[in-house]
Amino acid sequence: MQGGARPSEEFNVSDDPSASPKMPPANTASHGAAPGDAAAVEEGTGFLPRFDAAGLVTCVATDVATGDVLMVAHMNAEALQKTIATGEAWYYSRSRRALWRKGESSGHTQRVVEMRTDCDQDAVWIRVEQSGAGACHTGRRSCFYRAVSRDEAGNASLRFVEGDRAFDPAAVYLKKT
Amino acid sequence: MQGGARPSEEFNVSDDPSASPKMPPANTASHGAAPGDAAAVEEGTGFLPRFDAAGLVTCVATDVATGDVLMVAHMNAEALQKTIATGEAWYYSRSRRALWRKGESSGHTQRVVEMRTDCDQDAVWIRVEQSGAGACHTGRRSCFYRAVSRDEAGNASLRFVEGDRAFDPAAVYLKKT
Repeated sequence: MQGGARPSEEFNVSDDPSASPKMPPANTASHGAAPGDAAAVEEGTGFLPRFDAAGLVTCVATDVATGDVLMVAHMNAEALQKTIATGEAWYYSRSRRALWRKGESSGHTQRVVEMRTDCDQDAVWIRVEQSGAGACHTGRRSCFYRAVSRDEAGNASLRFVEGDRAFDPAAVYLKKT
Repeated sequence: MQGGARPSEEFNVSDDPSASPKMPPANTASHGAAPGDAAAVEEGTGFLPRFDAAGLVTCVATDVATGDVLMVAHMNAEALQKTIATGEAWYYSRSRRALWRKGESSGHTQRVVEMRTDCDQDAVWIRVEQSGAGACHTGRRSCFYRAVSRDEAGNASLRFVEGDRAFDPAAVYLKKT
């Protein structure tokens, strides 16, 4: 399937954000699930996110317009619930140890067009409409603005593929005094 | 940019896989890096992967033909080195605690067209040519074959978006006796 626009009737966002979807709590023992559980996780229709020991799943956000990966971040149960309930991306910041609505500082929010989960349900993929200039706090549209290259001597280095900033982070993230 | 084919001169794969790229060892303290280090990580051209406490970075593999996310997995330093050196995707299996060449059992290998890293260098994105029928061990092309939907009562459930298997996993992964 193309990375471009697709209808997504399945992602029905309620008008009432307080009507959070019901999901199981973090289950750190899930990686040792019995075979019967594995079938339910891989072939069932129950959303059974398998949070890691820190209570997180990995989230990949791609740009619905281009298919590019915008960012890789994490969601705890609350971020996942809020994302599903509101249709906007919420994450959990491991460094700040806090729930975080994408764009709450920059205004560069992400509207979720579709959410998917993977076979073992320890990751989600969201296809988003990125509002504002970009997803990355450095001022780029995508966090993945450098390609890994390898010279003849076998040394790996980085090459900027999206060098021009889409916005000025100092202006966008400047603290209001 | 579109998810389709893009030239990738930067991903020069050596004919000699033993000529592994030089990379720093796992550094579990990197999340507490000083501001000067952050600038080098975010704005530099040095490939300085920030491995987590388990010695891993997250890897997102997308299909170069469609832009779809095929899988989310992990790489340790050795998997990263082998991927860069050979141009084929290698991962580290957390459940099996072993290095793993994608397709070594199924034959469904992944040729890496481009590798990128993100702002804080704790994740890589590889755009791959998926050989064989699919990336997922369940028989689908992508591991993300179910969309998360939400009913009017606020319950989240899954809907198969890629229900027909691309291959029969029992035939492909059958152990040779």
